Amino acid sequence: MKLVKYILLNLGFLLLTFNLSCQSHPCLILTHQGVDAIKKDMGNVPLFDITVAKAIKDVEALMADGVLVPLPKDLAGGYSHEVHKRNFLELYKAGVLYQILQDDKYAKFTKDVLMAYADLYPTLDRHPSDKSYAPGKIFWQCLNDANWLVYMSQAYDCIYNYLNTQERKKLENQLFRPFADYISKGNPKFYNRIHNHSTWGNAAVGMIALVMNDDELLQRALFGLEEYAKSGKSEFDNDGGLININDQSEAGFYAQLNHSFSPDGYYTEGPYYQRYAMSPFIFFAQALNNVKPELKIFNHKDGILSKAVYALLNLSDGSGQFYPINDAQKRMSYKSRELIASVDIVYSLNQSKSLLSVVKDQGIVQLDQTGLFAAKGVKECDLEPFLKPSKVFSDGANGERGGLTILRTEYEGNDLSCLFKYSAQGMGHGHFDRLSYAFYNNDNEVLQDYGAARWVNIDQKAGGRYLKENKTWAKQSIAHNTIVIDEISHFNGNTQKGEESTSVAYFNSLDDPRFLITSAKDLNAYENTELHRTLCLINDQSLYPNPIMLDIFKVNGSGEHQYDMPFHFKNHFMRSSFDFDTNLTSLKPLGDDFGYQHVWHEATASLSIGQYDFSWLTDDKFYTLHALSSDNDQMIFGRIGANDPNFNLRHDAFLVQRRKNATSPIFISVVNAHGSYSAISEIPKTPYAKNISIEKSLDDGDYTVVKLSFENGKNAMLFQSNKNNEASKVHRVDIDGKIYLWEGAIELKILNNK
Amino acid sequence: MKLVKYILLNLGFLLLTFNLSCQSHPCLILTHQGVDAIKKDMGNVPLFDITVAKAIKDVEALMADGVLVPLPKDLAGGYSHEVHKRNFLELYKAGVLYQILQDDKYAKFTKDVLMAYADLYPTLDRHPSDKSYAPGKIFWQCLNDANWLVYMSQAYDCIYNYLNTQERKKLENQLFRPFADYISKGNPKFYNRIHNHSTWGNAAVGMIALVMNDDELLQRALFGLEEYAKSGKSEFDNDGGLININDQSEAGFYAQLNHSFSPDGYYTEGPYYQRYAMSPFIFFAQALNNVKPELKIFNHKDGILSKAVYALLNLSDGSGQFYPINDAQKRMSYKSRELIASVDIVYSLNQSKSLLSVVKDQGIVQLDQTGLFAAKGVKECDLEPFLKPSKVFSDGANGERGGLTILRTEYEGNDLSCLFKYSAQGMGHGHFDRLSYAFYNNDNEVLQDYGAARWVNIDQKAGGRYLKENKTWAKQSIAHNTIVIDEISHFNGNTQKGEESTSVAYFNSLDDPRFLITSAKDLNAYENTELHRTLCLINDQSLYPNPIMLDIFKVNGSGEHQYDMPFHFKNHFMRSSFDFDTNLTSLKPLGDDFGYQHVWHEATASLSIGQYDFSWLTDDKFYTLHALSSDNDQMIFGRIGANDPNFNLRHDAFLVQRRKNATSPIFISVVNAHGSYSAISEIPKTPYAKNISIEKSLDDGDYTVVKLSFENGKNAMLFQSNKNNEASKVHRVDIDGKIYLWEGAIELKILNNK
Repeated sequence: MKLVKYILLNLGFLLLTFNLSCQSHPCLILTHQGVDAIKKDMGNVPLFDITVAKAIKDVEALMADGVLVPLPKDLAGGYSHEVHKRNFLELYKAGVLYQILQDDKYAKFTKDVLMAYADLYPTLDRHPSDKSYAPGKIFWQCLNDANWLVYMSQAYDCIYNYLNTQERKKLENQLFRPFADYISKGNPKFYNRIHNHSTWGNAAVGMIALVMNDDELLQRALFGLEEYAKSGKSEFDNDGGLININDQSEAGFYAQLNHSFSPDGYYTEGPYYQRYAMSPFIFFAQALNNVKPELKIFNHKDGILSKAVYALLNLSDGSGQFYPINDAQKRMSYKSRELIASVDIVYSLNQSKSLLSVVKDQGIVQLDQTGLFAAKGVKECDLEPFLKPSKVFSDGANGERGGLTILRTEYEGNDLSCLFKYSAQGMGHGHFDRLSYAFYNNDNEVLQDYGAARWVNIDQKAGGRYLKENKTWAKQSIAHNTIVIDEISHFNGNTQKGEESTSVAYFNSLDDPRFLITSAKDLNAYENTELHRTLCLINDQSLYPNPIMLDIFKVNGSGEHQYDMPFHFKNHFMRSSFDFDTNLTSLKPLGDDFGYQHVWHEATASLSIGQYDFSWLTDDKFYTLHALSSDNDQMIFGRIGANDPNFNLRHDAFLVQRRKNATSPIFISVVNAHGSYSAISEIPKTPYAKNISIEKSLDDGDYTVVKLSFENGKNAMLFQSNKNNEASKVHRVDIDGKIYLWEGAIELKILNNK
Repeated sequence: MKLVKYILLNLGFLLLTFNLSCQSHPCLILTHQGVDAIKKDMGNVPLFDITVAKAIKDVEALMADGVLVPLPKDLAGGYSHEVHKRNFLELYKAGVLYQILQDDKYAKFTKDVLMAYADLYPTLDRHPSDKSYAPGKIFWQCLNDANWLVYMSQAYDCIYNYLNTQERKKLENQLFRPFADYISKGNPKFYNRIHNHSTWGNAAVGMIALVMNDDELLQRALFGLEEYAKSGKSEFDNDGGLININDQSEAGFYAQLNHSFSPDGYYTEGPYYQRYAMSPFIFFAQALNNVKPELKIFNHKDGILSKAVYALLNLSDGSGQFYPINDAQKRMSYKSRELIASVDIVYSLNQSKSLLSVVKDQGIVQLDQTGLFAAKGVKECDLEPFLKPSKVFSDGANGERGGLTILRTEYEGNDLSCLFKYSAQGMGHGHFDRLSYAFYNNDNEVLQDYGAARWVNIDQKAGGRYLKENKTWAKQSIAHNTIVIDEISHFNGNTQKGEESTSVAYFNSLDDPRFLITSAKDLNAYENTELHRTLCLINDQSLYPNPIMLDIFKVNGSGEHQYDMPFHFKNHFMRSSFDFDTNLTSLKPLGDDFGYQHVWHEATASLSIGQYDFSWLTDDKFYTLHALSSDNDQMIFGRIGANDPNFNLRHDAFLVQRRKNATSPIFISVVNAHGSYSAISEIPKTPYAKNISIEKSLDDGDYTVVKLSFENGKNAMLFQSNKNNEASKVHRVDIDGKIYLWEGAIELKILNNK
């Protein structure tokens, strides 16, 4: 029933029985037409030639070590894990090399390894480790087994014609079909989710189906397991993610396409996971495009796969490193193999010359016809810069679950960017960081997000898995640049509660590059409390020589509470306008839960009402925070590292502005990137920020008005309607007897005289 | 008398009266022949054209700001300081641009600024700050005033012919001559030292003398002030350096040449200061070479100036950053303007094609005929790599004050290097770090030296001067990879006591690149105690896949003491073979003096007799320390940062192996660089070191023998005679009934069977 309904819903472009068309191998990712093209051009396309040379080096190194198919035993980072991983990552290249170099040794080695797997596989029970909710057979989780099959399908496709019928039969019957069954029917909790794990599963099953011309498997890949009855109760994977969603009525690859991405191509777990998740999408889509072009898979849901790739490219800092949203290991970038494949494939579809700039920066291409095409583009075309716009990314399959805004501006050739997060929780990998923001100067972190507490695949650190400090520190609100009330994380640190609601966009204005404004609210992070943050990136040299980021964080709550506003500046502290008392000979943790137990309390200052500043130097750039304080505000210098028995955390410093016993406070600050230093010339340029005077001109339930006064006598005023964000509504306020009018939720006005 | 004696001593190549030869300006650094060559080639020599374009940009920016000659007031980093500094750094370029572009606007601006100085200078008393032992008039110290004159002499030389006689008279009588007198006669304590400060003074006086054809000033530059009577008692500058040395019988530029460098070209303060000190040497030498070629200044003392430049190039890590010996700000490199000038000048003398590789890497050249020549070399020649050998650098004018050894080896394209220090104290900028070593992988610090506690020229940090933590932490022994006894620094932290003695080389063997050995002793850092360290860098893949550094630190003392052996590994800790107790909720300083007061005590382990290992990851490379422990050894995890009220220190972690109540202990360890990680592929390569078994086979007063056993069954044994280092002496030891013979102080033998 589900299947039929789904097909009817999905435009009827499918026939109930497929006419599988892989008549001539290779057909899956590399095609035989691709092989012809590569043979013709190879040697004359530098980027592709580099790719081939690297593949030869890698594969020769693998072959030199001989056929290694050890008994599955270890976790990520351990011997058996790394050997099996290397096998699938290199063996698909060996298959391609066989095709394009016509050297049988590659096919023979590929065959030998696959045969060893075919001998081993029937003897295997599930992996001995019990760390996963869905253990694989080769690896500790089905997820990695699915990775294996995605790549090994390609290897098999490439040597298909090298094998005789008997050999194929052995591989298919002893290895590939049972393998596909195990990760699907054998593990429905893994296979039938709307989740990146399942996408890998779907793609793996689908790709081997296409190679083997197995219609039943292909159906299972595209539409999931029908026979898998929902349990009705909630279950969680070992990352804390929900396994089953009770109202889920679809599964399989189409369901993933329909539900994984927002209409802007954003994936709710964040770009680090989106990057990882892209591989099965893009590989299986390319395979479907090759074998079943009539599905027009890349047109599905208004071209959602291309949008997802562009979203990833845009969700990166000035050097292409992804913003570390949620559980993300920092420095992952669009140079990853997943994005290399994705960009080459999208380029082969749209031929956008700006993508070629990315291809060039990646420095290597996919080892197939799309890589050849992209490499030829780099060689032959006038490249256009890949410009990343300021942009709003909605979250949720229908864009209904909040989102992100990226504000970007340029300053002396540097790419300043601000990521504002008001999205959904991000499932099990989500952080409790509603309305947080992070600020970048190129790839320098000005105000950082901690990212994940994990060394991916490094065995010494808990087998390369998430460290327990990921939960106790990295996910907690205090680890982010957002407000924390009463030292308790958003949603009381409960992922399920976080999943139930989302922040909401309040206002976005990205048209005038001089004044970029984003604003959002959250009504659920704390009970009976409205959080409302507005960020405005101002880059107008007639006002101020450098870009400045104005931040207005307003809380409407009930009763008195303690409010902590953290600023995760990156080292090194330069100076502050206030004196502080440093704890010189004894350090204690700042608190005892919600991440506070991990913070050494290094120094304290007492502020009075007024304006303070605080400046730091990171990566040879100077930054200054200017902000308003209230009477009895405390400034706390913290440093991560308490209660960290195995030195798992980075011992980074940060600042907390603390307001005690406050009712509905507002925090207003400006961050300013203003200078640089060279350790070679030893000359500091603009080490001090020019003065900015911040004034809270008005703040009540209805309206907030903030005035910035600059040294040149000019002023900027930000007018905000706090309750009504209708675009056409005209607002009027009276400030010191002067009337101001504006239209819509928020407007920034420049005033030339005081 | 002194002068006559000096001339007689110095080969009689001088006539008592000079025949000054600057008949045609410019003559000093840029020559009129150089101007002709530049006019001819400009536009066809990319590196030189880049240099000219940059000079134009810089000078135009200066001119756009107008003539700024503020009243002297500020310290380094402050407004008046930075303006005057920019003036001299840019105005000499303006002079050169006038010559090579023949555009009068550059000459006019240069004249206007110089005239403003000529009007200001007679009104000035000494600088208002009292931070220097020798205040200047324009700057807070004469040193900076001398910098000013070195550059302004060039500016004046370049516009000499643009000025009329009256203008020259005004500049010379109101500005240059009184300026030269003030920094020499007016400040003999500054001018007559054997010290880099004085070299600047000598060069400044000498260069303006050459432009003005002033014989008396030139004599003063070359031979110092004769009338300056020694005070007889010791005085110190504000960096703690000795001002007068009672047995000093010479002064002036020749004295600097004779006494500043060791015969290997090493300057006792270390490369950071040597780099700074090179400018006056190299500029004045070039000027003398141009105006008085008959002096053959570059041949003086066996070509000591070229040797000094080569020493600097060699005293740098894999990316050309100087080893941070003594008070050094890290990341200073051979890309500094001082080295650009030096390398161009030396290349113009020796035309070594390997220097051109350095020129190319510097990316810019000197704005004169030597820069043109080097830039043409880069364009026209086949460059040769600049290979840095393993090398011994003696310290002391006659090589009599200990020295440094650099051990270098290559590993998978990486440059591994070890700097072993057994030199003299290094004057006021010296650290208490006898027999310390630092270890590098390219420009990654594996075992770091802290460097200086200072942000040079950054006003926010104590005016850019040395911070007090430089003395309380950075200079102290515990801040270095060397032994500390009873928590007291070497020489009780007394610079004067440190100056009185030096460590001594014991053995060096650098001929076999597979086994590089260096060994030195210190008898004075602690009373009645002999420190003896031997380092051996082994790179022999038949033994072990990666290079390993064997370290044997032996102490012969009297009575029981506590011995601390620090390992300043760079973050991040990966794992250790031992369990440790982390101080989770409270931190206290490790001690109360000699730097220990700055160390937070983070964790402790108790060891028994045996071997431990400890591994870390820095800049995506894995390292492992393997070492022997004794019963009751403690391992202390420390982190810099206690008693640091203004957050002046980097809060880096390190490890201390502590042996209490020990008599004459020995510490034996191996450090091993063995793997890498990519945050993009997320694949660790060789994250675990292969096993090395360390055995102390013999250790008594006469002999120490250490055996390393490798996984492949091979062994290496290091045999050391502890007392006799005669090269031809044959030694014999009996270990477990087996007799071993070797010749000379130390030998490493490979044994193929156990």
